[in-house]
Formats: sequence, C-alpha cells, structure tokens
Amino acid sequence: MAAFQGFPHVLETQQFTRKWLEEKLFPLAREKRLSVQARYEDIPTLLRGKGMATLFYEPSTRTRLSFETAMHRLGGWVVSTENASEFSSAVKGETLEDTIRVLNGYRPAVIVLRHPEEGAAKRAARISEAAIINAGDGTGQHPTQALLDIFTIQEEIGRIDNISVALVGDLVLGRTVHSLVYLLGKFINVRLFLVSPPNLRMRSDIKEYLAQHDISFTEHTDLRTVASQVDVIYQTRTQTERGSSLAKAQPEDIFCMVDAQILNLMHPHSIIMHPLPRNEEISPEVDKNPRAAYFRQAQNGLYVRMALLQMILG
Amino acid sequence: MAAFQGFPHVLETQQFTRKWLEEKLFPLAREKRLSVQARYEDIPTLLRGKGMATLFYEPSTRTRLSFETAMHRLGGWVVSTENASEFSSAVKGETLEDTIRVLNGYRPAVIVLRHPEEGAAKRAARISEAAIINAGDGTGQHPTQALLDIFTIQEEIGRIDNISVALVGDLVLGRTVHSLVYLLGKFINVRLFLVSPPNLRMRSDIKEYLAQHDISFTEHTDLRTVASQVDVIYQTRTQTERGSSLAKAQPEDIFCMVDAQILNLMHPHSIIMHPLPRNEEISPEVDKNPRAAYFRQAQNGLYVRMALLQMILG
Amino acid sequence: MAAFQGFPHVLETQQFTRKWLEEKLFPLAREKRLSVQARYEDIPTLLRGKGMATLFYEPSTRTRLSFETAMHRLGGWVVSTENASEFSSAVKGETLEDTIRVLNGYRPAVIVLRHPEEGAAKRAARISEAAIINAGDGTGQHPTQALLDIFTIQEEIGRIDNISVALVGDLVLGRTVHSLVYLLGKFINVRLFLVSPPNLRMRSDIKEYLAQHDISFTEHTDLRTVASQVDVIYQTRTQTERGSSLAKAQPEDIFCMVDAQILNLMHPHSIIMHPLPRNEEISPEVDKNPRAAYFRQAQNGLYVRMALLQMILG
Repeated sequence: MAAFQGFPHVLETQQFTRKWLEEKLFPLAREKRLSVQARYEDIPTLLRGKGMATLFYEPSTRTRLSFETAMHRLGGWVVSTENASEFSSAVKGETLEDTIRVLNGYRPAVIVLRHPEEGAAKRAARISEAAIINAGDGTGQHPTQALLDIFTIQEEIGRIDNISVALVGDLVLGRTVHSLVYLLGKFINVRLFLVSPPNLRMRSDIKEYLAQHDISFTEHTDLRTVASQVDVIYQTRTQTERGSSLAKAQPEDIFCMVDAQILNLMHPHSIIMHPLPRNEEISPEVDKNPRAAYFRQAQNGLYVRMALLQMILG
Repeated sequence: MAAFQGFPHVLETQQFTRKWLEEKLFPLAREKRLSVQARYEDIPTLLRGKGMATLFYEPSTRTRLSFETAMHRLGGWVVSTENASEFSSAVKGETLEDTIRVLNGYRPAVIVLRHPEEGAAKRAARISEAAIINAGDGTGQHPTQALLDIFTIQEEIGRIDNISVALVGDLVLGRTVHSLVYLLGKFINVRLFLVSPPNLRMRSDIKEYLAQHDISFTEHTDLRTVASQVDVIYQTRTQTERGSSLAKAQPEDIFCMVDAQILNLMHPHSIIMHPLPRNEEISPEVDKNPRAAYFRQAQNGLYVRMALLQMILG
Repeated sequence: MAAFQGFPHVLETQQFTRKWLEEKLFPLAREKRLSVQARYEDIPTLLRGKGMATLFYEPSTRTRLSFETAMHRLGGWVVSTENASEFSSAVKGETLEDTIRVLNGYRPAVIVLRHPEEGAAKRAARISEAAIINAGDGTGQHPTQALLDIFTIQEEIGRIDNISVALVGDLVLGRTVHSLVYLLGKFINVRLFLVSPPNLRMRSDIKEYLAQHDISFTEHTDLRTVASQVDVIYQTRTQTERGSSLAKAQPEDIFCMVDAQILNLMHPHSIIMHPLPRNEEISPEVDKNPRAAYFRQAQNGLYVRMALLQMILG
C-alpha cells in the first residue's frame, strides 16, 4: 500500500485501500492468529532488536497492552508511558512536537500515540522518523480499532460487500464509529441503520460522507424495529453520564440496548460487536450467546496489530 | 498437586498440601536461589515466548516488581499495569470480568491480579484461560506471600513442625497473617502466641480454624512476656493510622514492637519476620542483627515466585 | 576509573576524571552511536540476563525512557516504577533504605533512582549491592545529564579546553548547570558567562568552586551583550512560574531568551544547548538552525547511558 512506502505512519483509515485490506492485512492477521493460537510459546524473532515506545496521554489499558503484547510476541522491546500527561514532562509545559523529537533520538522503530487532541498523530508524524501509530486522537480517529473491526466482520460474516450494519448508541461522539464508517465506504452495497436517541444522532459531516460514497442509510430510535434486518449490530461505548440516557427509562419508541429480546429478533448468522469497554448498553445475559462477537473482536486486535507491526517494521 | 492439574490458578493457601510444599515448591525455590545467586547473568530461556500481564488495582511496587523480575529471569515477557483502577478502562465502568476476558484475548500465559475486593481472584479464575495468580484481594488472601513466609521459616529454622510463632501487631485486619495461619495448620505441633493491643485481636473465625486444626494458641498484649519462648516473631505491617496505636505510649502491659530489648529476650536461633513495608513497629536498630530475617524473607519471594511460575507455565 | 572499581555507583560528577572521560566514556559512547545508527536491528546480547530497576519518585519520562531504552538495546531486562512516591509502598511510610534493600533482594544489576531529596542516591548507594545510578536527587546532582552535556560539547565543538560558555536563565536552582560546572572545571581555560535576571543568579558556593578551579567567569543580565563571544549557549530549563519572569516584559537591560536576534549575533560554529524540556526560553524559530544542538544533545543521552551501563555491568 502506497501509504506504507517511505512514510510508514498509521494515522487514519482513509489511508487504507480495499486491495490492501484484502490482500495484505487480512491474510497476515490470519497467519498471526494461527501462530499465536497454535504455539504461543514460539520463540519470537521477527522484530528482535527493534523497539516500541508507547506514549499515552490518556488512559487506555486495553489498547496499550494490546500493542505491547503484539510487540513482545514479535520479539521486539517496549518502553512504556502509562499516563504521559500527568507524569511526564508534559507537566513542565513541553509541546508534543518536542516530546516526539526527543523520543526519536532514542531511535525506537515505532511510537504508539494516544492523545486527547484531534490531529495530534498527524502533527507527530510530520516530524517523526519512527513510524507513528495513531492509537486514538481525541474526537479524531482510532484507525487500528477500525481495522480490527472490519477484520472481525470479514471473519465472522464471511464478506463485507452486501452487508447490513446497525450502528447503535452514541453516534455523535463515537470516534470508533466514524473510523469504521470510512472503511465500510470502500466496500459495495453496504447498508447502514443508524440507531440512537434523538440527541445522540450521527454528525452531519459523516452523513454527507455516506451519501457521497453510495452507502445507503436510514435513521432510527428503536433497535427492535431494525434487529431482524441486519448482519451486524455494532453497539458503541457510551460515556457513563451519557450512557445512562440509553439505559434509563425512555419513551416507548426509543430503545438502544442489546438484550435477550434483541437476540431473539436477530438472524441466526448475525453478530453483535462492541469496541469495549461496555457499561449497561449490552446486557451480560448476551455474553454466552455465540452471536456475541465482542470478545473475539478484542482478540482480533492482537492479530491485526501484530500484522501491522510486521508490515511496517519487518 | 491436584490444584495445578487442569486448573492452574494460585488463589488461596488452602489449595496447597504439605507434600507439595515439601516435595515440589521448596526444592525448586532452592534451585532458583542457587541459579540466581551463582550466575545471575545466566541466559534465561525456560519461559521464552510466554507472557505475563500484571493487573494491579492497588499500588504494590514490591509485589509487582517481584513477579515481573521472576518472569524476566525465566525468559518470559511482561506487560504491566501499575494502577489499573485509575488509569484503565475501570474508570469507564468496566467490570473485572470483562477486563479479564479481554486480557485473555491477548493470550498471556499468566495474569497476576491485585484487587481491593475479597474474592476478586476467584471471580477472575472462573472465566480465565490464562493462569490467575492472586497477588492480594482486599481482606482476602495473598497466597504467594504466605508461601514465601513458610519457605523462609523452613530455611531459617530448619523445620516447621514443632515450632512456636508469635504473630504480633494488627491481627484483626492482617491479610498476610490469615494466609500464613492456613499454611501453618498443615504442620504438626505448631504453637501460636497472638500478641496485639486489645482492639486489634485476631478475628474469631481464624481462631475457630486454629482450634479445629489442632494449633494451640494463647492471646497476649505484651511481646516481652512471650519473646523468650518463640522460634519466630512474625511482626505485621500496620497501617499508618493504626500503627500509631502500636508505637505510641501505651499502658504498661501493652507492648507490640520489636526493639533491642526484645532482641535481648529472644533465643539465639530465633528469627524476626515481617512482610514489609514496615513503619515504626520494628526499630531500625534491629536491622543489623542476624536474627532480623525480613530482608532475606523478601528475597525469598523472588525464588518462590520463580518456582511457582516454572511449575504452572513450564 | 577508580570510582568504578569495587563500588560501581554513579552518584555525582565529581567522581569522574578528565582521563576517564576522554579515554573511556567518549570513545565508547561514539561506538554506541555508530552501532545504533548503522544497524539498530542488531541483536543485543551484551547484557543479556542482567536487569535494571527504575525507581522514580518524581516524574521524568525522558530520563526514564532513555535509561530503559539503553538497557533494552544492550539486551538486558527492565522492571519499572513510573511514580514510586504515589503508587508504591512509599505511601505506606517505608523509608528509601528499606525499598532499596528489598529491591536488592531481586538482584537487579543496576537501580536507576530519581528522588526529590538531595543526597538520596548516596544514601541508597551506602546499602546497595546493585549499582546505583543517580538520575537526579532534588537540588543535588544529575550526573548522567552532565556527562551527555560534556560529550555533546566535545562532539559539536571538537574540544572542551579553551571554550567560552554562556550559562543562561535560572542559575540559582538549576541542578543541571551545577553538575555541568563541576565537569567543566576539569578542563583548561574554560570561560563562563553567567547570564540571568538579578533574582536568579548563580549560588555563591558554585561561584567559589569556579574561583578555586581557575574558571574565569563574569555575571550578566543581557544575553545580547554576550552572544557573539561564546562557543556554547547553554540555556536552562525554567519552571513555569519562574520561566515567566524570563519571558515576560523585562527592563531593557535584562534579556535571557534565545531567539532569532541571538542567532544572528552568534558565531557560525557556535551551538545552543538545553537539557529539555523547554518552555518559552528558546523560541521555536531557532529549532531548524543547525546550531540548535539540543535534540542531538538529548540523543547523546542514549549513547552515553549505553556506554555507562556497559562499563559498570558488562
């Protein structure tokens, strides 16, 4: 993929092509899954001697540990900052650019960056010799999440063309959903059902993107009216204070949770996804159903990140 | 040991048998001590390619570093969370079970868990494919501490049967003491002296356990009346606010500190133990006396944890 | 060097001789630079099986990551504490000495210590079998910073004898500046210009040291009157609240910032250094000028620390 030639940063989902997804990422992620599941005591050597620096200005244990595990499994080394904003020289007033320049002096092969400001990863990439991987930049993107999402759809449903997806919950702020939509736009005949309370509707710029990319969509407030028509229910993470507006008593025509009644409405082959962590928006009674794909989805994060690291550093 | 067959979690001291302690753990811990002390630059390969995730919801630098060092010394890799409760998705309202499920997706060989709630390790073990090691769960247990304690008694005194142990200080809350008592109950003719201020006496359920397991015990408030009769003084960690009630001026018949006068009363072959960290309950003047075993005890933690990891992962 | 024989701690710049700098440290640091820059995927084995524990009671991401990267690049393993004072047993009232004793029980080859109290590293060294490296102790020293500073002067200017250095900014508190001055005192005919606002002048004990070691110095308040006469402008880090007194409007004869007009005054062969992080005391417009050496200086920290670790542990 062109984006990886000479400028190997992973910044936003727009940089990936369908061809690259299908011919490069998916096969390599499958290969990684096989090697991890078959013999996880395998001696890792692929990235031996290469380093990763994780620079997290916001807490995200799962994303950080997923990247660090991927690096260890390929044989590289890791230096880590769990809370850069509180404990680093950020408290002394240093700019992100200076921090990235100094980190580059230690010559890691890759810097994994989580930052509260949209565009932070691009700013870092502009001056970094080490590959920058955007692990979430504010209300911007979280491209590796979208890659593991699309890989999960491919593996669970068997195709991405001609699918129907319900995006459910807080659609106004959901960084994850926005990144995923950009990827879905690269496939054919994808139909979206946007299900949210009226106050949490999808941003209009995303809806314009959908219209331009020939993705048909309709807006809804009640998941029960939609559940039987979709291949994927993608339930979104809701902030505690916002999530309560999903979980609490609502007018009769507003329903945005996944529970047993939703399971009963869904096709046997359909799946439920969630970027995790979840609060009350998926009921625990759903967990044991084989259509609950969200923990397999998290696991796919490891394989996708191993594949990415191998492609850009190997 | 049965507990390690098919379900290799380390959750509570009750799961260990005397036979396993004497025939498996102690010999392997001794072997690890020899290899560490003789040639610590030895190239580690035993657990190469296997991973440990440390998940600490409470601060415990010493326990965390002890486990992580043990893993590195056996050649494995480590991903680490120093303060899961503040910096992880716990702030986003995720349950322990979800966190454990996601971590399992990264396929570490072992998860070391410290959590403020009693029973947390068992809850984690119920759903984890990776081995769970309980590194302390609230007022529950801290089994690896008890294992290193009992190993220290064996190595320092040369036996565990027929010994007299003074448990001193805050006996009502001391998780460490409770875990140790369960292990001592597996040996013959152990005599306990329970020494504490009246308000910090041993919990009645533990005393019932002692009675049932044929461990004789007596209760005291003055360590000076007991010190000459014991092989081991096991001084406990006291919380700052509670510790002050030990250290400050007390009625004449209450004395629960270890200082030079206590040393003078003790047998030449006896030892002083402490799980550390300590505050004022052991006077620094005691440190240089060869009977002060508490730093050797901490060191034994490394060997015992290396042995445990090798047994359950090797 | 004598200081490294039998007592391999790195505590203060006074322990290094000019001979050791020129014949040991500088050549090995250059060798490390070559190996890192030429083939950073090289398989590291020099310190395989040896461990580093980083114990930071104050935040310093850059120093910690620099040391940890150096250790990984030599093949060793690392256990890390990002904020020992908040998350460790320090909150339970443990002394530094006890923490060091317990850490020693895990037998790391080296402990890298950052602590808020002057003299902490010496206290640790008194009882530690593992090599202690002082990574900053309060208003005391930060010797590895001074070593990378002096190495940078050698590499950028080509000599240390017969140079003129302007030390600029907050000279009263600057730990970095004090450590550097001790090293400069080992060379011949070094001339210092001490440039600061009147309220931030160099401490009198340091000025006495300069007088005793035959380093000529003059005091100034305006960098513009000095810039054309020096080989090195060493701008210091200023605390946010103190830095504002440098950056804000000042009387006409007080000027302690580096900006484009200062660049215009400087010799073509001169350089600008800074220990980083910086606030407003160096204007970003200076960054692209080849005389801005501060990011190369930070990078030298990696090579100097790799060289140090190899010398004391290899």
